Amino acid sequence: RASTHAQADIRPLRIRSLLARQCLAELLAVFVLMLLIQGSSAQAVTSGGTKGNFFTVFLAGSLGIMLAIYVSGNVSGAHLNPAFSLPMCLRGHLPWARFLSYSLVQLLSAFCASGVPYHALYHDALQNYPGGSLTVTGPKETASIFATYPAPYLSLSNGFLDQVLGTWKLMGVPAGLEPVVVGLLILADMLSMGANCGFPINPVQDLDPRLFTYVAGWGPEVFSAGNGWWWVPVVGSLVGAMPGTATYQLLVAKHHPEDSEPSQDLECAQQEASDSGSPAATQLQESKL
Amino acid sequence: RASTHAQADIRPLRIRSLLARQCLAELLAVFVLMLLIQGSSAQAVTSGGTKGNFFTVFLAGSLGIMLAIYVSGNVSGAHLNPAFSLPMCLRGHLPWARFLSYSLVQLLSAFCASGVPYHALYHDALQNYPGGSLTVTGPKETASIFATYPAPYLSLSNGFLDQVLGTWKLMGVPAGLEPVVVGLLILADMLSMGANCGFPINPVQDLDPRLFTYVAGWGPEVFSAGNGWWWVPVVGSLVGAMPGTATYQLLVAKHHPEDSEPSQDLECAQQEASDSGSPAATQLQESKL
Amino acid sequence: RASTHAQADIRPLRIRSLLARQCLAELLAVFVLMLLIQGSSAQAVTSGGTKGNFFTVFLAGSLGIMLAIYVSGNVSGAHLNPAFSLPMCLRGHLPWARFLSYSLVQLLSAFCASGVPYHALYHDALQNYPGGSLTVTGPKETASIFATYPAPYLSLSNGFLDQVLGTWKLMGVPAGLEPVVVGLLILADMLSMGANCGFPINPVQDLDPRLFTYVAGWGPEVFSAGNGWWWVPVVGSLVGAMPGTATYQLLVAKHHPEDSEPSQDLECAQQEASDSGSPAATQLQESKL
Amino acid sequence: RASTHAQADIRPLRIRSLLARQCLAELLAVFVLMLLIQGSSAQAVTSGGTKGNFFTVFLAGSLGIMLAIYVSGNVSGAHLNPAFSLPMCLRGHLPWARFLSYSLVQLLSAFCASGVPYHALYHDALQNYPGGSLTVTGPKETASIFATYPAPYLSLSNGFLDQVLGTWKLMGVPAGLEPVVVGLLILADMLSMGANCGFPINPVQDLDPRLFTYVAGWGPEVFSAGNGWWWVPVVGSLVGAMPGTATYQLLVAKHHPEDSEPSQDLECAQQEASDSGSPAATQLQESKL
Repeated sequence: RASTHAQADIRPLRIRSLLARQCLAELLAVFVLMLLIQGSSAQAVTSGGTKGNFFTVFLAGSLGIMLAIYVSGNVSGAHLNPAFSLPMCLRGHLPWARFLSYSLVQLLSAFCASGVPYHALYHDALQNYPGGSLTVTGPKETASIFATYPAPYLSLSNGFLDQVLGTWKLMGVPAGLEPVVVGLLILADMLSMGANCGFPINPVQDLDPRLFTYVAGWGPEVFSAGNGWWWVPVVGSLVGAMPGTATYQLLVAKHHPEDSEPSQDLECAQQEASDSGSPAATQLQESKL
Repeated sequence: RASTHAQADIRPLRIRSLLARQCLAELLAVFVLMLLIQGSSAQAVTSGGTKGNFFTVFLAGSLGIMLAIYVSGNVSGAHLNPAFSLPMCLRGHLPWARFLSYSLVQLLSAFCASGVPYHALYHDALQNYPGGSLTVTGPKETASIFATYPAPYLSLSNGFLDQVLGTWKLMGVPAGLEPVVVGLLILADMLSMGANCGFPINPVQDLDPRLFTYVAGWGPEVFSAGNGWWWVPVVGSLVGAMPGTATYQLLVAKHHPEDSEPSQDLECAQQEASDSGSPAATQLQESKL
Repeated sequence: RASTHAQADIRPLRIRSLLARQCLAELLAVFVLMLLIQGSSAQAVTSGGTKGNFFTVFLAGSLGIMLAIYVSGNVSGAHLNPAFSLPMCLRGHLPWARFLSYSLVQLLSAFCASGVPYHALYHDALQNYPGGSLTVTGPKETASIFATYPAPYLSLSNGFLDQVLGTWKLMGVPAGLEPVVVGLLILADMLSMGANCGFPINPVQDLDPRLFTYVAGWGPEVFSAGNGWWWVPVVGSLVGAMPGTATYQLLVAKHHPEDSEPSQDLECAQQEASDSGSPAATQLQESKL
Repeated sequence: RASTHAQADIRPLRIRSLLARQCLAELLAVFVLMLLIQGSSAQAVTSGGTKGNFFTVFLAGSLGIMLAIYVSGNVSGAHLNPAFSLPMCLRGHLPWARFLSYSLVQLLSAFCASGVPYHALYHDALQNYPGGSLTVTGPKETASIFATYPAPYLSLSNGFLDQVLGTWKLMGVPAGLEPVVVGLLILADMLSMGANCGFPINPVQDLDPRLFTYVAGWGPEVFSAGNGWWWVPVVGSLVGAMPGTATYQLLVAKHHPEDSEPSQDLECAQQEASDSGSPAATQLQESKL
């Protein structure tokens, strides 16, 4: 129609592809999330605890999830995490193309976001605090600002279990909650399951900044530390997400008479439809992470 | 109709009995609640206070109640606690069969949940922190992660009063509040009434993990400690719940002209009806704990 | 009608007088508020800071206000504080009879509430912590659990100003906010204006427990301490409430075109009407404290 | 009509000019915001950390933003910060006259607000804590209660980047969020980006109290300290606001089919219209800071 044409002329930068718009939303959401997670951790470490501590790091991280849902929930469903998207693919509720696009964009975004505290925001602090050296272990280590490392007592098998259980627990949260409530629940998880290795439960959030520190000067120890810890959050969170999604469905949601699920084929068809149309249908039921 | 038949075929696991569905919801809700309570406590204790403290334990516990209400409120009314259900039975608002079913499921769930931090999540931490021994007293004790123990100064009579008053206070909260608000109120209670013995106010939440620690290797001291403290939270919370429910009714709710209560017989009949039908009628007014 | 008659027979305890019901609601609201304030303070003091600190005391106090609004807001308007009611009387928006009834009930409730931590909840802790003696000053003093005492540096004139400003600030909050928001705002006030004397800003909340401690064994020093500090929160909060209510009205609310105020005579008439009818009209605009 | 005339007679103080009413609302909002920021800082500093710390200062500051939005959001759009208004002017969405009026009022209000802790609320504490001297550096400095000073390690260039990034991040928040959510997000920003210089990100909030301390007795060192730090928050926040507003628009909001933006000329016209009419159109979409 005429008015639509006029509008298109006025907004030349407008992107019409839903997938591209969803990827942009994921990009921004993961970027602000990583900024808050790494920023709060850098604040606590480089100030020597005078302007941050374990609690403020957990709080900023959970509020970061809340912000990321507000930023992208209405457009892309606020996936933020391949461990969240993968079970949806396996159950046929999400096209693999969208999973791959999201994951690539999330990887790109998290890598770039790691540069902000390092090259810009806390550049001076990261030079000053450890006296110029970038170490992975020892009292003045700064690698844990970016990626997680296990507590000294933690075996790889217990660490793997920790990640499986953590993602399981996270995925069992009922859908449709307010972003503020989701943030509070994730804070509770961090306060209960964060002692072993800091509750990464996100392959992108952990592997990507680790790669960044490898490149930026911390060296290969970021991969060898903790008996080669690096793969545990990556694989553990992907494995834990599978039963996680199923638990709440099996125990509670499935049996509700009122919200009877349509068959999976129907859902998948709706999903395809929504990919070329309005994002409204995909938003809230996906934004449970 | 045909579509309903098709749906039934597609969902063979769907449970049609309301009571069974309610019990499953209670099972999951108590499980996640106990996981957050014991996990946060283990995090604070085994990290030596570097990743948790009294405040994060109280916060995670109150957020756990919030999560449990979200998980089960719409299905089972989020009882979570026999001390919450018992007065409803005595006033004739809840069938005894449902009380017994709920209590059994809650006992089962809390016992299993105690295994998660012990056998899985904090297995290495619980080996490492106390150096391999499981003790009930002393500076490296770990029994208080699972069940409550009284402060050294506390007599059994003052402890009993503490539990009666705590449950009384908890039950006096107006019904129909948002789960977030309920969580905040319980946090306030924990910050005001948690010094003597940690505000257990739930027989299941306290007795069950104590049984677990007895079996798992802490031995009979879990029952003898604190001059045989173990029965105080169990009996105290059941006793305190009676006047608790009545207080708000007598002082405020009863006299409202707008929400005039039907007679008890009518309410009981409604309850019976709802037991064979939709859970909608039982949800919000019950989820005040 | 017949059904109404039947109902009346079933509920013989129902009170029909609105004023009596409002007083009962104020009674319960002030009681739980005082319980949380004094309980959290006793928890922080008698545990030697291991289960409470200045922050948890402020947090429990602000959540206590939130609870008190939920308990009584719909019935009595959640006055809770004579300093809140007095300006309404002076502007003719509240009958003096209601002000006097509320104040008497609040005094009664706060006095009784002081007995709970002393005689029941923290009886053993209050015996154990100071070694049996009840002192107003010194490192093991316990009088500040019940009433406020000024910081050592504070002059009476600065203390008086502190109370006037604190009540002024508190009264300037816009009306109609959610109780959770009111609680958060009061927390912010306590974190900004609580260093001098703990932000009492309520004659009942401060004078009544001081009287209790005088009777209960702390002796006359509760009145003489701090150069005779006791009258400062009482008078200061009453004085500060006057300009407080006016500020937001004068600067913002008065000039809104949409919520045009009726004349004072009209409002007063409405008030009288509502006193014999439904409390609905008086609830939310009054519950701003 | 007659009733309107009568009303005008009854309310002689009512201001009919929208701009004047908006300026009054900004005045009050900035005043209470500065009171909470400076009060919480004074509480933490002068109590030697016993009644406040870095966390309570950040919390009170973010709750202050929340309160300021409640106070002025519906009338003036809760600008509070020239760095928030300037990009709206440059994009043609806000008349320059309103920008200048707001900024002048904000400057006036923040200067006066600085007098409250100094001359009234914490007068005795500010005399007692540093022993009578007002210093900008050293262990007993009190200048940082009013304005921000950089951490010792921070270069001016990193500090400038910090302010640009901080304002960028702040401006990227989606519009239309609840004030409570805005407060939580700002708390997360403070916990992640507050280590270098305390997250001022507001020219008025930083320059004005610095001027006050210069006049009140701290002397010229308030401008020379930190290698002449004073201009960094002022210029940095104004610079960072430009890309900040654009980011969310470009990446997410612009591409929504549902909330299609009218052309800038239309919006500007609406703005002019709203300046002489109801403030309803300007409220929520502006209150994102």
